[in-house]
Amino acid sequence: MSELPGEFALIARHFRPLAAPEGLGLGDDAAFLIPPPGRELVLSADAMVEGVHFLPADPPDLVARKLLRVNLSDLAAKGAAPLGYLLTLAAPRATPDAWFAAFAAGLAADQTRYGIGLYGGDTTSTPGPITLSLTILGTVAPGTAVRRAGARAGYGIWVSGTIGDAALGLAALQGRLADPTGALAARYRLPEPRLGLVRAELVAACLDVSDGLVQDLGHLCRAGGVSDGGVDGGGVGAEIEAALVPRSAAARAAGPAWLATCLTGGDDYEVLMAVPPEHEPALAGLSTTVPLTRIGRFVAGPAVVRVRDETGAAMMLDHGGWSHFG
Amino acid sequence: MSELPGEFALIARHFRPLAAPEGLGLGDDAAFLIPPPGRELVLSADAMVEGVHFLPADPPDLVARKLLRVNLSDLAAKGAAPLGYLLTLAAPRATPDAWFAAFAAGLAADQTRYGIGLYGGDTTSTPGPITLSLTILGTVAPGTAVRRAGARAGYGIWVSGTIGDAALGLAALQGRLADPTGALAARYRLPEPRLGLVRAELVAACLDVSDGLVQDLGHLCRAGGVSDGGVDGGGVGAEIEAALVPRSAAARAAGPAWLATCLTGGDDYEVLMAVPPEHEPALAGLSTTVPLTRIGRFVAGPAVVRVRDETGAAMMLDHGGWSHFG
Repeated sequence: MSELPGEFALIARHFRPLAAPEGLGLGDDAAFLIPPPGRELVLSADAMVEGVHFLPADPPDLVARKLLRVNLSDLAAKGAAPLGYLLTLAAPRATPDAWFAAFAAGLAADQTRYGIGLYGGDTTSTPGPITLSLTILGTVAPGTAVRRAGARAGYGIWVSGTIGDAALGLAALQGRLADPTGALAARYRLPEPRLGLVRAELVAACLDVSDGLVQDLGHLCRAGGVSDGGVDGGGVGAEIEAALVPRSAAARAAGPAWLATCLTGGDDYEVLMAVPPEHEPALAGLSTTVPLTRIGRFVAGPAVVRVRDETGAAMMLDHGGWSHFG
Repeated sequence: MSELPGEFALIARHFRPLAAPEGLGLGDDAAFLIPPPGRELVLSADAMVEGVHFLPADPPDLVARKLLRVNLSDLAAKGAAPLGYLLTLAAPRATPDAWFAAFAAGLAADQTRYGIGLYGGDTTSTPGPITLSLTILGTVAPGTAVRRAGARAGYGIWVSGTIGDAALGLAALQGRLADPTGALAARYRLPEPRLGLVRAELVAACLDVSDGLVQDLGHLCRAGGVSDGGVDGGGVGAEIEAALVPRSAAARAAGPAWLATCLTGGDDYEVLMAVPPEHEPALAGLSTTVPLTRIGRFVAGPAVVRVRDETGAAMMLDHGGWSHFG
């Protein structure tokens, strides 16, 4: 009875080296964290399922890094700095040890990149696909978190980076689209969380584009506006111009038939921001490394997103983004 | 585009009513928590997979409550008080709305019982079994968390409640054992986290019994003892007497053939404690509602668990508990 059962040997081999000091070497049932004094905690959790959020052939290190980064992207959209994370992992019993080794190596690489560590979690078997869940913790100065609520009629709609590459990358990996440089597939497999970009003094509301630009903009609309009582949430409309939505050279090369996929495909992990007009000049000059682009504006009216094509006509999209149910 | 896609309508219908104030009605990508001043945070995450941790026929409200309670049990073993939780849920697209309704009702019932709320999470589809992951947050006064490390030779081994009912309940639900009153199945489906029982001034080390009494006692042994340098972790042995391990009337009625299952079956969610001799009288008198039983003691030597039968002979167990891999 002194030998470690397989599950715990696996954890010791692959995950213990990732533990933050708060995680006690993953040798306890819990992590113990003294919250940074004077900071507000920001918490988010996202799951990823093999065959739904990533492909069985995706390299395990990139799966791990994507899992971490989609959660870091939520912190980025709130203007928060990351602290650490908990991970639960369900995998078939036959999963080779090399898969775990590569998965842990991916986590290790991004832990170093983002200065975070593993607090704890759980490893379990499953008769189904690999299913991952990650809870991330970050902090902001009290009162400076940027929320979904806060968009008002007249505010500009801004987005970071380029939109659509990841959705086209999925199409490329599925053999539906050429991707000669591999740039599109790379964006699908490894998002770039925009940490440090969103600042409460310039941005009134924000979220990260995960399910599709149009659908996620709808979330800002529903959470925005001002009710009769003057509080958030009366709803606000949005108008964007498809031609203004920033697309990479590779995405433009795919041609106009793929425009709708770019606008609704998701997996972008760019930040989508509502910016009061007086702050737009400052925002425009904020970053020299990540392009920030104004794609439209919020307008008075119900929480409806209108997308105009180059002629000014309304584009018909059969859906706004990705929905897991219904 | 103003109508909520199915996924978000489902979240609004079933999970928004569960949101803690910090969860912003689940209408944001993150929760915002001002940590209770002067408290240390305790974090834990556990996953549950249909067909592994619960049965497809288990009532969804009990599945939800078990998920919450196995995580609360981790807090209980650390002497922590619960704050709130994040939940990720992967379910097949065909999962009926009634399943989600019952699942949420189970969470609501136990949220009230334990005074906690939902901070956030993620709902996703899966081609596989229902897979749940929960991250729980609790607090302790700084320095009063009870860890796995801390057992020393001479300390008593104590356990709360009764051991084995849940493992026998699983056997009953699988048709391998009679369970005329349903008491065993009830313990499998709905554990009772022992919140408020473990106190740092009496208990040197603790964990909750989830994978099997003998295996989990091995964790206390490996984390315990004193190394040459005087720090935790040199390892310590344990001796328990099978006849002292508290079993319910229903478990005793199953007969001696099921004793090994009780000792190694797991899912008990009782607390297993290392108690210095000078604190054993106080611990014995601590609770009038939950029995606390001394089942053996830690002994000098390597981190090996010995189980003695009624004649004093060593019991041969083919495994100490449940391992998901290897």
